[in-house]
Amino acid sequence: MNDELKAAFVAAAGGAGFAPGDEDASAYLTDWRGTKTGSAALILKPGKTAEVAAVIALANETATPVVTQGGNTGLVGGSVPEADGGAVLLNLSRMNAVRAVNSGSMTATVEAGVILQTLHETAAAEGMLFPLSLGAKGSATIGGLISTNAGGTQVLRYGTMRAQVLGLEAVMPDGSVLNQLTPLRKDNTGYDIKQLLIGAEGTLGVVTAASLRLVAAPDETATALAGLSSPEAALALLGQLQAATGGQVDSFELIPRIAVELVTAHVPGTRDPLAAAHDWYALIELTGGGGGEGVLRPLLEAELADAIEQSRVADAVIAESGQQRGDLWRLRETIAEAEKVDGVAIKFDISVPVGDMPGFIDRVGGAIERRWAGTSIFAFGHLGDGNIHFNVRSDIDVLTRAALMDLRPAITAFVYEELRARGGSISAEHGIGSLKADALARLGDPGKLAAMRAVKAALDPRGIMNPGKVLV
Amino acid sequence: MNDELKAAFVAAAGGAGFAPGDEDASAYLTDWRGTKTGSAALILKPGKTAEVAAVIALANETATPVVTQGGNTGLVGGSVPEADGGAVLLNLSRMNAVRAVNSGSMTATVEAGVILQTLHETAAAEGMLFPLSLGAKGSATIGGLISTNAGGTQVLRYGTMRAQVLGLEAVMPDGSVLNQLTPLRKDNTGYDIKQLLIGAEGTLGVVTAASLRLVAAPDETATALAGLSSPEAALALLGQLQAATGGQVDSFELIPRIAVELVTAHVPGTRDPLAAAHDWYALIELTGGGGGEGVLRPLLEAELADAIEQSRVADAVIAESGQQRGDLWRLRETIAEAEKVDGVAIKFDISVPVGDMPGFIDRVGGAIERRWAGTSIFAFGHLGDGNIHFNVRSDIDVLTRAALMDLRPAITAFVYEELRARGGSISAEHGIGSLKADALARLGDPGKLAAMRAVKAALDPRGIMNPGKVLV
Repeated sequence: MNDELKAAFVAAAGGAGFAPGDEDASAYLTDWRGTKTGSAALILKPGKTAEVAAVIALANETATPVVTQGGNTGLVGGSVPEADGGAVLLNLSRMNAVRAVNSGSMTATVEAGVILQTLHETAAAEGMLFPLSLGAKGSATIGGLISTNAGGTQVLRYGTMRAQVLGLEAVMPDGSVLNQLTPLRKDNTGYDIKQLLIGAEGTLGVVTAASLRLVAAPDETATALAGLSSPEAALALLGQLQAATGGQVDSFELIPRIAVELVTAHVPGTRDPLAAAHDWYALIELTGGGGGEGVLRPLLEAELADAIEQSRVADAVIAESGQQRGDLWRLRETIAEAEKVDGVAIKFDISVPVGDMPGFIDRVGGAIERRWAGTSIFAFGHLGDGNIHFNVRSDIDVLTRAALMDLRPAITAFVYEELRARGGSISAEHGIGSLKADALARLGDPGKLAAMRAVKAALDPRGIMNPGKVLV
Repeated sequence: MNDELKAAFVAAAGGAGFAPGDEDASAYLTDWRGTKTGSAALILKPGKTAEVAAVIALANETATPVVTQGGNTGLVGGSVPEADGGAVLLNLSRMNAVRAVNSGSMTATVEAGVILQTLHETAAAEGMLFPLSLGAKGSATIGGLISTNAGGTQVLRYGTMRAQVLGLEAVMPDGSVLNQLTPLRKDNTGYDIKQLLIGAEGTLGVVTAASLRLVAAPDETATALAGLSSPEAALALLGQLQAATGGQVDSFELIPRIAVELVTAHVPGTRDPLAAAHDWYALIELTGGGGGEGVLRPLLEAELADAIEQSRVADAVIAESGQQRGDLWRLRETIAEAEKVDGVAIKFDISVPVGDMPGFIDRVGGAIERRWAGTSIFAFGHLGDGNIHFNVRSDIDVLTRAALMDLRPAITAFVYEELRARGGSISAEHGIGSLKADALARLGDPGKLAAMRAVKAALDPRGIMNPGKVLV
């Protein structure tokens, strides 16, 4: 890129831009996992929508690739540029204004660079809740969460990011602005174009702002850990609780025995809260309001007692304090950390229909353990969403990292084929990025891929938006 | 269309087809309101997806327009062909199989021609609820409900049809099949193409089957009618109830005094359940489960008492039986019928942000009444969704139908401009069809229209899918 064009891009971005050589750019060019480092001609940090539009119009005119970046905490290499160095990196962290919070409409209108935690705090200050949360909440931005259709721990109750977006403002690949920012609950005036931008990982345009739904903050939380014999039993418990609470189950996380063992062995201050060992556990959280304190807690206790009576659950503990609730969640949230200590893993982020997941874990997991000696299945996570972190693991003294990584292509091919045959997803919540773009092209439904390519060519005919990601 | 091509189309549809001259076709060619009658070369009634695909492939090859029809109960002329007679009408009523109901996954997979009421009964038989309902439930089909992104009376709690669709099967305009039918709760593998088909009114392809979410059937319902002084007071009450119940408000319908007067005057067996007259009413329904009977009813009573204490509500009645509940709903559901008896109306199906609706009714309604003598605003409906049936009405002895219709262009232009200026929608739930296609072209956001046209040209380059609808 010549100096004249660089200067024009920086001017378009309102003067906020620099070349990687001039300042340290490593935080922008290396992804969160540290496994991919790209290169860019320029890093631009526009402060408003009009500047983004000017940058994109210039990029379209000059056929310059544009990679848009929020908090850069994605897991599939989607938010860093490729290695050729020809791209402009558009970092939206300066577009971080909360434009409006409306308690009458129960909505918030925020710019793309607003951090998730800031939105949580903004909503809480008005007695409301933004009902999506995940581990990276301190750095993930609204624009990135929308562009990856992020999930998290409350999807069961409230849906993914797609379900939270009532309105969207975006700059399209030709530099025009999509103005659908009004937070309408109902609007049937033609194709819902904003749905294309949600989950497109920056390949169809740049999300610059969004109007999001908020919900009334719940005034009661009940949390429990149940020990049980199988994922089937866990799923039956989930059905029982959904029916009993009229759908007030916020979280329902599956945890295997090995996770409890690893966490209690390696993470200081954790302990197994149940007296005996169980093959599987379900971490359950209900939230609600209106009954005042003391409606959900006894309800959960009665339902768990009933489940024990029916031999669906072997034992259970209910959190009696915020401290105990935190301890139960800590068992779940430190699994990834504990798993690393003396093990290696090939990790999958998969989904199948909710009711099929127990059978999938059993059948596909069993086949892998039999076929590849030294591996064991470590499956945990969002059972209520049919989305499991399905890790093929080995203790480091059984298989070295190198030995397990040698098996990776064959195991990946096996898992992906099992998913394809059952209509499952090879990426339930992390997206495609560059990491899974080849796999999607190979394994995706041909009808869907054809429609995706037609849409991409129609909206971004020069292919400037985040090339190398999603569609290859 | 020559006989050879007609025969080829009938063969493609598995033999199920006829020309309008050969059999009575009026039920297919005239819309539900009876205001539009189109013409078709053939009426085809395929029985399976492969037949639909064969029909569409032939239509694409021969550039034959295709109009897809479900229950033909739409309100904007979207499901009947234009008058030129060159189109093939594809009626999907024979594709009416319930393919699967899964209580573990809480999903149902049904073909496009399944009637909404059948789905309700199917879900109920398994102890679950399909959480979308509307007046035409005895004839509206799932394919039509998806293609128009239908709303209804439970949107506040459960969202529109878009929120119910977990998986979709569709025939694209080139005859290829989009296979996204697996009911995945989470799937981030590229653009969510099925979102384009939802609400496209048959202009981007033919929905042939869908996997839909079900929810646990609630075991308690509490219903009330509150008399209050203004839409603002109603909205404040809604906020209070959402907070108090943790979001268990299913319905929150606004009713004006004139509606209660007309209904009680003209609909046999109805009566005003409150002792005094009130300017406005809110019909409220909460549903939930788990507490057993008797949690929501006292909660609603306490909250209404509190609202009366705060002068937010003037008076209220809670249904004490199924009979009383039915009576309250009857007040709401017979409004359209009662309004007709001695009045005429120009009807709008509009939305603005929920919190803006009271001001909109007051300001825009007041301006219309002042500017056009003899008119009065008759606003009722889904206040909780920001979606009101905003009718500009006159008693027939004040303005004749002809006199009011003379005012229609000017009043419509005024209302649409007010909506445009505030980011509102000219069609909150009925869609665009042919009735509002000109208005959308004139008033829609240019960025959105450009993207819509690009998508339409990319997916349906020959323009065969439901021409004359949505985009003109």
